[in-house]
Amino acid sequence: MQQSTIAAIATAPGQAGISCVRISGPSAYRVAQEVFRPARAGRRLEDAKGYTALYGFFERRGRRMDEAVALCFRAPKSYTGEDVVELSVHGGEAVVRELLAACYEAGAAPAAAGEFTRRAFLNGRISLTQAEAVMEMIEATGADGARAAAAAMEGALYRRIQQVTGILTALAGHIAAYTDYPEEDVEELSAERLRQALETARKDLKELLDGYEGGSILRRGVRTAIVGSPNVGKSTLLNLMSGYEKAIVTPIAGTTRDVVEEDVSLGGTTLLLADTAGLRETDDPVEAEGIRRSNRKMEEANLILAVFDASQPLSPDDLALAARCRGRLAIAVFNKADLPPRADAAGVEDCFKRLVRISAREEGFSDALRGAILDLIAAEKPDPDAALLANERQRAAAARAKQALDDALDAAEAGFALDAVSVCVDDALDALYELTGENASDAVIDEVFSKFCVGK
Amino acid sequence: MQQSTIAAIATAPGQAGISCVRISGPSAYRVAQEVFRPARAGRRLEDAKGYTALYGFFERRGRRMDEAVALCFRAPKSYTGEDVVELSVHGGEAVVRELLAACYEAGAAPAAAGEFTRRAFLNGRISLTQAEAVMEMIEATGADGARAAAAAMEGALYRRIQQVTGILTALAGHIAAYTDYPEEDVEELSAERLRQALETARKDLKELLDGYEGGSILRRGVRTAIVGSPNVGKSTLLNLMSGYEKAIVTPIAGTTRDVVEEDVSLGGTTLLLADTAGLRETDDPVEAEGIRRSNRKMEEANLILAVFDASQPLSPDDLALAARCRGRLAIAVFNKADLPPRADAAGVEDCFKRLVRISAREEGFSDALRGAILDLIAAEKPDPDAALLANERQRAAAARAKQALDDALDAAEAGFALDAVSVCVDDALDALYELTGENASDAVIDEVFSKFCVGK
Repeated sequence: MQQSTIAAIATAPGQAGISCVRISGPSAYRVAQEVFRPARAGRRLEDAKGYTALYGFFERRGRRMDEAVALCFRAPKSYTGEDVVELSVHGGEAVVRELLAACYEAGAAPAAAGEFTRRAFLNGRISLTQAEAVMEMIEATGADGARAAAAAMEGALYRRIQQVTGILTALAGHIAAYTDYPEEDVEELSAERLRQALETARKDLKELLDGYEGGSILRRGVRTAIVGSPNVGKSTLLNLMSGYEKAIVTPIAGTTRDVVEEDVSLGGTTLLLADTAGLRETDDPVEAEGIRRSNRKMEEANLILAVFDASQPLSPDDLALAARCRGRLAIAVFNKADLPPRADAAGVEDCFKRLVRISAREEGFSDALRGAILDLIAAEKPDPDAALLANERQRAAAARAKQALDDALDAAEAGFALDAVSVCVDDALDALYELTGENASDAVIDEVFSKFCVGK
Repeated sequence: MQQSTIAAIATAPGQAGISCVRISGPSAYRVAQEVFRPARAGRRLEDAKGYTALYGFFERRGRRMDEAVALCFRAPKSYTGEDVVELSVHGGEAVVRELLAACYEAGAAPAAAGEFTRRAFLNGRISLTQAEAVMEMIEATGADGARAAAAAMEGALYRRIQQVTGILTALAGHIAAYTDYPEEDVEELSAERLRQALETARKDLKELLDGYEGGSILRRGVRTAIVGSPNVGKSTLLNLMSGYEKAIVTPIAGTTRDVVEEDVSLGGTTLLLADTAGLRETDDPVEAEGIRRSNRKMEEANLILAVFDASQPLSPDDLALAARCRGRLAIAVFNKADLPPRADAAGVEDCFKRLVRISAREEGFSDALRGAILDLIAAEKPDPDAALLANERQRAAAARAKQALDDALDAAEAGFALDAVSVCVDDALDALYELTGENASDAVIDEVFSKFCVGK
């Protein structure tokens, strides 16, 4: 049981109608009383029942700062399983920061990243993968990501892992019974049955691991790099897709130096667009730094929009760019299609999954380009309701489990004693129990919650 | 009475622990029921009393999307004075957008900007200046701004205006009684008493108007332009003040083209920093556009940080910049003070309120510069607890009232009939009643609430 009482701003920063500070811990009501005065005389916060709210004022050092609503929860029926008070004020950034400062003055400790959810986990309210699903839900930028998170919160991944641990636990039990109690009449484990059980478990894990990259597209969006030679219309394309003039556009080659980024929603999926400096040889060190960043964006991208000028012959830089797109999820965008065509698209066609001609100037973000992007993404996206590994920690644990099963199969194949197989199966189970949090170490738990935002 | 039921996201966009959709109107409970399912069987949202909450789930089209808490308010004891349900979910942007979409599907109409607060005003829950104070509170970026908003919400401006309207109403009444009912024994209004009353009211309004610019510093922060010749260290200064590398810094003149902006908090006040392109003659049209934007930032600024290279003689561009700073709230920042000094600071000293030598490279954001900025700002800042005009609408109304009193005094001075004075006093009262909302037209009210964010 946690003894401290923590407080943090639980809503996102920025201007809004409502901002909220969450207080959790044994002294939550004592802290809240110091900063909240009920409007109706005689009402006392400490008398409030769980799931009731009071109207009143946020006061700091005797000065009335804002109207406020106090929403009360009583242990164990709260998000953390502890006493919780949520104080809502008008949504200004400044006032909610003042409110948090006042809570600190009243004795609350600053909540660490993810500490509310960590307490929920430690108090047995939720499992580790469910806690991670909460973070996934928070980070989801598109409907796809939210659905994937909802599936995980509801337990889709947990159940899928349980299937695998079920198979492996049965197997480990059988081996133990057979080898440890030879005098008992335990049925012999045939090589075929052993192999089948290991193969089934390994196949399940392989499927989960194969879906990991696609899941990241669902959750975080498609990292999309707009690349190409100078002055082919990259910034114009970004502006069109994002719907307003974010980047300075001029007819001068080398206008964009900083990487300009923008999130765009396309059919439920988020595109994390990055407009980059034109790729060319340059002696200008500022531009060279821009081009270095541009190359990095391209390497990290899930989707590449390689823009070419259809009205000019392809340059050696263009051909080099096309070659780098081979094997990637990349669309060749031949811009300036309204001008007489001079680029030989056929020369680079086989480097790309799709080739689209547009006139950004005349038709804007064309349906053809939108369609090509959606097509390519759809092929990469897994079913959001399926069990998905949500993060690198889960992926690494699943990979360790799969490796252990590979080793177990090798051992079985090589005709090693069942003991050797059994050790590998135990390793796989350890990795999977770490994944679900059933025997995760403090270090693993620290790692999980350090990735949360403060206030969750 | 409003007949429609409206919904909007009431928390700020972004990742957070809690995001909230507010539903208000006669069908608020019917809408909320469609998207919220209580966790405990048999509990019904429509049975919930005001100021109670239910735990459950947000569901859309039969699919469970997230955990949720429904906080219930019953008319007239709610923010709007109507039935209100606030649905809180995990703070992801995607899930709260889904929740809002589900509320629309269930029959809620999208709330217009400020519509919740507008309904609170129309239902008589708050006055117009209090409604504007809500917006002020939301927009406040620093503790100063929040205190100013709290004062307005609590009624500081309203009471100050009431003092003035009190004087003028008494005066108008006296004049009316004296001129309309000569047969009654009404005391004659001496020229001296008339002048005194008008002067007192005008002085109050003048004080309010004089404090307007300073109030804007409290509320919105100090618009601060970092200007100077190329390569004197403007971007380095911005990065130092904001604490991380936001702008690309290189030794190349002309590196910054886009205006790079950053908000920095300094002793409760927000500085809205803008790093700008180096000012110089240029043939490069991209750079010229950057310099045009730079000049505009400088014109709009409350505070100018004019950066010079202490290790170089001042250029004609430097001297021109200094001349433009004369009479402005401007600090001359002589950077590169670690190098042998070659700039003649004395030549420009009298153009500035303060002159500071720094070595941005060696000492970072120096105490001397911090102190100079705080000093200059402190002199400009009014008392946040005082009555302050919050926005252009209030300023314009107060200015109209003052003009009417100027006219009244002129008329009195010129020995015109009391009727002429009386017309002017009525004009002043009209302007002041419009300010407080007591007789504001629909157009004025539309204007006020159009400036709110959606969700408030």
